[in-house]
Amino acid sequence: MDEKLKQAIVDIVGEDHYTGNIIDLVSYACDASEHCNRPLCAVFTETTEQIAELMKLANLEKVPITPRGAGTGLSGMAVPIRGGIILDLSRMNKILKISIEDRIAVVQPGVIYATLEKALAPYGFFFPPDPASGKVSTLGGNVATNAGGLKGAKYGTTRDYVLGLQVVLPDGRVMRTGSKAMKSVSGYDLTRLFVGSEGTLGIVTEITLKINPRPTATSTALATFDNLEDAGLAINQIMHSGIIPSALEILGRETISAINQNTDLNLPEVDAMLLVETDGYTEAETSFQMEKVIGIFKANHPQEVKEAKTEAEVKDLWAARKSAYAVLSRIKTSSVLEDVTVPMTHITELLKGIQNISLKHQIQIATFGHAGDGNLHPQILYDGYDPDQVERMKKASADLFELAIGLDGTLTGEHGIGLSKAPFMTLEHDPVAMDMMRTLKRTIDPNNILNPGKMALEG
Amino acid sequence: MDEKLKQAIVDIVGEDHYTGNIIDLVSYACDASEHCNRPLCAVFTETTEQIAELMKLANLEKVPITPRGAGTGLSGMAVPIRGGIILDLSRMNKILKISIEDRIAVVQPGVIYATLEKALAPYGFFFPPDPASGKVSTLGGNVATNAGGLKGAKYGTTRDYVLGLQVVLPDGRVMRTGSKAMKSVSGYDLTRLFVGSEGTLGIVTEITLKINPRPTATSTALATFDNLEDAGLAINQIMHSGIIPSALEILGRETISAINQNTDLNLPEVDAMLLVETDGYTEAETSFQMEKVIGIFKANHPQEVKEAKTEAEVKDLWAARKSAYAVLSRIKTSSVLEDVTVPMTHITELLKGIQNISLKHQIQIATFGHAGDGNLHPQILYDGYDPDQVERMKKASADLFELAIGLDGTLTGEHGIGLSKAPFMTLEHDPVAMDMMRTLKRTIDPNNILNPGKMALEG
Repeated sequence: MDEKLKQAIVDIVGEDHYTGNIIDLVSYACDASEHCNRPLCAVFTETTEQIAELMKLANLEKVPITPRGAGTGLSGMAVPIRGGIILDLSRMNKILKISIEDRIAVVQPGVIYATLEKALAPYGFFFPPDPASGKVSTLGGNVATNAGGLKGAKYGTTRDYVLGLQVVLPDGRVMRTGSKAMKSVSGYDLTRLFVGSEGTLGIVTEITLKINPRPTATSTALATFDNLEDAGLAINQIMHSGIIPSALEILGRETISAINQNTDLNLPEVDAMLLVETDGYTEAETSFQMEKVIGIFKANHPQEVKEAKTEAEVKDLWAARKSAYAVLSRIKTSSVLEDVTVPMTHITELLKGIQNISLKHQIQIATFGHAGDGNLHPQILYDGYDPDQVERMKKASADLFELAIGLDGTLTGEHGIGLSKAPFMTLEHDPVAMDMMRTLKRTIDPNNILNPGKMALEG
Repeated sequence: MDEKLKQAIVDIVGEDHYTGNIIDLVSYACDASEHCNRPLCAVFTETTEQIAELMKLANLEKVPITPRGAGTGLSGMAVPIRGGIILDLSRMNKILKISIEDRIAVVQPGVIYATLEKALAPYGFFFPPDPASGKVSTLGGNVATNAGGLKGAKYGTTRDYVLGLQVVLPDGRVMRTGSKAMKSVSGYDLTRLFVGSEGTLGIVTEITLKINPRPTATSTALATFDNLEDAGLAINQIMHSGIIPSALEILGRETISAINQNTDLNLPEVDAMLLVETDGYTEAETSFQMEKVIGIFKANHPQEVKEAKTEAEVKDLWAARKSAYAVLSRIKTSSVLEDVTVPMTHITELLKGIQNISLKHQIQIATFGHAGDGNLHPQILYDGYDPDQVERMKKASADLFELAIGLDGTLTGEHGIGLSKAPFMTLEHDPVAMDMMRTLKRTIDPNNILNPGKMALEG
């Protein structure tokens, strides 16, 4: 790396906040996706001003900057595919304000989701999106990817809770968007232009979040189905029943058998297992909703229906679902976790289509996910050292995206486009929408220095 | 109007869908705000293709186009302040699809909010934003202004329910945004760039909405307070109590006495009346929440607390709130309804500040609004034929905006910027944010043909 550039960077962030060590850069080359590329250097900033200076420098020198939180992204958005500088935001990790009366929390981007959860818990409040990576992922990353999770069907995703942002633009100017008020329709919705933009338009340095009181009661139940159609019908009927479960999860046969092979949970090896939670403030409320769900389960030929009666039983019912990703990730040397999402009426077709793709390419695909909002996680398991399997994984992925789009769905319900899904963007978006996204990128970041190479924005 | 241009417009929309009649154009000159300006002509389109052709023509000829739904906007966004063409979308009023299992409704922009409500009711579903104008306002207008209403604190605003759009851009290209799936993070959030953009970036020709099952139980109560501080404390404590009421409304003293002077409701003349609704699926759930609220009311020196026991009593309690705007609008020849919004902890200060502004400018201001999300409606009553009163109304408005921004609030919680608040945009938004909005407008509508003169986008 050019010494003059290095010195200019060090002058901004300080010697202690700069690394060019190969061992550090190897770590910064990858995130939780299958992509890797080494940056020139990495810096840890501590202030908005440092970031503004850094952006001015990068813009002048045309050096790419890739922002990074915890690196838990599954689509490669934190991978510095064009080299340049990794901007590690994990040290900007202060909760700046919690105001329960105002229903807001103001945080820096490096605050971990779980840290905010812990800070809100004494007040009985929570930040609902609940991404599966919440124990390690940062709120800045959650905002950059518009993260979602188990509670999406009832509570929405990160986007629905971001009231305002402070953003450093690619030219180093600092901007505030949105409001600290619960509602604002003042001017264009700049906030949501940045939510989900994967660090390609600006660096978020402060986030104002809406927070919710946490419902104090839940009911939990599980049902197993020998037949995929029955499970699909049950899902549709639940959504038709007038309630929204706070969670409605599905585990497919491949996932169940993988869990059985790797844990002592001894699950029944069925086509589909559905796990449902209802919530509220009273037992009457959660039971009322759960009775509807159980009634629907029973009308659709379940193999078994189990309602949790104790905290321990609740934990047992969730154990299988919670183990899924980790168990599946250990089966082969490599795996890719997708997050295709379709309208709920197409879930059965999606599940069957995934089975067909698995057969066609002779590759193992285990599926679980959020049936309540049509968001499935087919996890493709393969040997990353076998070029033939890598090739088949890629073909299976491509088929999967085509399948989802053909079913009126989307490439990604919660992981984002990044590198992994960039080649498929034009499958989902028409040429005018693609042009609009590219125009926005060019307008806001004319030198293409912010997280370049992502989201098919250069086409 | 130029005959050649007129003929070109008629060729696109047809003779029957064009009007240049002065009597029609007088109606099209105004909306529900205090602004008026006559257009050159008005057209009713019936297809996206017609709109695309019209946009191409207008872009070529540099003629302004102002889209219009029901014209219920309170900030002048449907007023053709630069003349040109009114594009009346009210005849594009088809509900294209309702899929309860998929939780979506697909509608044309001219569908009236209440029409969709009626269509969803048999399924027990609803579209939650519930704007006060819902009986007449169109969903296209709701999207253009990101409309909100009584249920905002619990259910959010229009923005939270728009999954996707079809939009005609200023150059006539047609674009689809978003997805029919419940969740998507595929590319930039183009959908929300257009929601709340007040018809300045594109013409929305199709809307895909997320719909919700309607809670089947409610509890309703009312409390009156002799002292504003007590009411303010009660509001804060409710938001701190771990529940979110489905409505929490406030009526101020001026509003109560105006209602008494113009109806036979005989309300107690107090500083503040709070009206609260809790909802759920069971009586246990709504009562549990209402008990918390009542407890808080009682701890804050109410003059009276009343719980509705029957449907008739519920109606009685709501009568005062529902009559407010209409009653106040009849007191003087003119009135302006504002919608400043502040963090909930500042509601008492906002209410007191409004009283001071009323005294300072010797002008009547009656306040009511959505205390649950900090969104108040000070309604300034004045004689529109008295230039001195008009002047004092303008000064009071300006003071009101300064007050709200000084309390960390926003100019507008639900009505939008339009013409009325355009001069105050820079009070709320920093120069970088203003520049970003203007850059977006210039990029997407370089000839400034779409609803020009609004939102301070030309500064």
